[in-house]
Amino acid sequence: MIINLKTSGGSYNITLKRNALNEVNKILNIKGKALIVTDSGVPRVYVETVANQIENSIIYTFPQGEKSKNFETYSALLKTLAENKFDRKDCVIAVGGGVTGDMAGFTAATYMRGISFYNIPTTLLSQVDSSIGGKTAIDFEGYKNLVGAFYQPEAVIIDPNVLKSLGERQFNNGLAESIKMAATSDSDLFQLLENNDAKDIIEVVIEKSLLIKKAVVEEDEKETGLRKVLNFGHTIGHAIETVTGLDELYHGECVALGMMYMSSGEAKEKIKNLLVKNNLPTSANFDIERVFEALQHDKKAAGSGVNTVFVNKIGEFEFKFLEYEEIYNILKGV
Amino acid sequence: MIINLKTSGGSYNITLKRNALNEVNKILNIKGKALIVTDSGVPRVYVETVANQIENSIIYTFPQGEKSKNFETYSALLKTLAENKFDRKDCVIAVGGGVTGDMAGFTAATYMRGISFYNIPTTLLSQVDSSIGGKTAIDFEGYKNLVGAFYQPEAVIIDPNVLKSLGERQFNNGLAESIKMAATSDSDLFQLLENNDAKDIIEVVIEKSLLIKKAVVEEDEKETGLRKVLNFGHTIGHAIETVTGLDELYHGECVALGMMYMSSGEAKEKIKNLLVKNNLPTSANFDIERVFEALQHDKKAAGSGVNTVFVNKIGEFEFKFLEYEEIYNILKGV
Repeated sequence: MIINLKTSGGSYNITLKRNALNEVNKILNIKGKALIVTDSGVPRVYVETVANQIENSIIYTFPQGEKSKNFETYSALLKTLAENKFDRKDCVIAVGGGVTGDMAGFTAATYMRGISFYNIPTTLLSQVDSSIGGKTAIDFEGYKNLVGAFYQPEAVIIDPNVLKSLGERQFNNGLAESIKMAATSDSDLFQLLENNDAKDIIEVVIEKSLLIKKAVVEEDEKETGLRKVLNFGHTIGHAIETVTGLDELYHGECVALGMMYMSSGEAKEKIKNLLVKNNLPTSANFDIERVFEALQHDKKAAGSGVNTVFVNKIGEFEFKFLEYEEIYNILKGV
Repeated sequence: MIINLKTSGGSYNITLKRNALNEVNKILNIKGKALIVTDSGVPRVYVETVANQIENSIIYTFPQGEKSKNFETYSALLKTLAENKFDRKDCVIAVGGGVTGDMAGFTAATYMRGISFYNIPTTLLSQVDSSIGGKTAIDFEGYKNLVGAFYQPEAVIIDPNVLKSLGERQFNNGLAESIKMAATSDSDLFQLLENNDAKDIIEVVIEKSLLIKKAVVEEDEKETGLRKVLNFGHTIGHAIETVTGLDELYHGECVALGMMYMSSGEAKEKIKNLLVKNNLPTSANFDIERVFEALQHDKKAAGSGVNTVFVNKIGEFEFKFLEYEEIYNILKGV
């Protein structure tokens, strides 16, 4: 299926289709040069399948992991574009997960003030979440996603077949974002996930997650209002991620932990059960003081506190501004 | 007077007013924190006049000159914002010339995916040209303006009084851009400049230049079409600038040289006379091979040649795609 996403600068298509990886250039029809950005964790066959369809392509592979999402990789990508004389008619294609999409997207956003960017996400996390919405960012001096741009891709291609090579922990990592979206905005999807093994219904999960994200992003491209709903579980989650590092906990696992702090009553129980069912953590040991410190550096921080998303009933949400003291007490479990 | 500029993301006001520097916060009404970015060449009294009007401001001063327009200054600015816990409600204000506007603008464009940016240009070059239109960029690995973003300021304040402290060569440097705009788009302004000392009619020159730029930018914010007219004199000009360096020739002087290659007949004579009248160069010695090499790296380069702007009659222009070989012959004077 094709989902069309409208943005302030136009619109673009998200193609969700089994085996789409073999039809990349039938879909994109790229004429100029393409820099294919990927990381060492992406099965080489995916990268080469894409490269072989484009006449004039270069592959740039950086070491897998969040630690590559920095100024050094950014500089190296810019240098590769410059040395190969890429101009405004050429493009950047991401083949990989969220880090790859961020690096490739921010590079495309800022090279010559913006060249074409295409995203081919190969992890569940990036397929249901990070490849959609135009957020790109890199870490800076220990601050997560501090530097970046809102920059929309010209097309996104999602091939569920590539998920077969994804490890179970990585799969669940992505599922956490779908659970997050279901919890705030789609009680049907939530029920589907409660009643099925996610793997068996993955196309439906991806589709429904994309439709939630589409609705939210179209309403609020620059995250000034409604889009903040996507931050459910992320306020404390990001701070935990900053402090523990991704070697220990994956992004989706941190979001899982974060949701536990920002839900209540029956909804909290249901979210907890669904997380446990999918081997996602619902509690962890971390240094509360350091997490609290990191939280105050978060982009979502605003003056004396943080805007958060709270779920009291599955499929519904509430925005809450919490003073730092309140957040601190929540972290302490007070 | 106030000129309102419409962009895809909304609109903003350019205030052109003598003594506006003393009314900055009456005009901007800034509530959050402000990072005032400036360079060592800007008279300190201007910077402090702005800072004193804003309750919560920090001043960051980098060494004057194009050599500061790089990743190191960019990193230092980002670090200053992060360490002072700037969030999305805070802002960046440029007080200075084009380099300052570029550095401050690109930093604001990418910090937390974009925070508010205000520009207070203090040179004629930035008042008539670079502060308007949303182009921000920094140099990278020897490539001029290779990295950047289209990012509109929320307001621009132009105080012609500050030009009093500008040296004559700097004044003429800015005037070259007004001559450029008059040559392609406003024969009245061209005549005014022919018949008057520019200093005596500077407010009119700024106003008319801004109105030309407004019309062009509103028509074509992202430089996909009409906006290329502003590149008159810049194709070869930028390449000369890259090769000779700004210690030797100023930007406007390079544009003056560039216009000589891209005009003909009576128009060329008139442009030449006006440049000479304002102590701007119409010929220079440079290494043609190196200029030609630099030209092929220019953002305006596209495949086998470069899109250029040609003036055969004052107030009119023509777009011409020139193959590299043709450009080479033009440079050689063949």
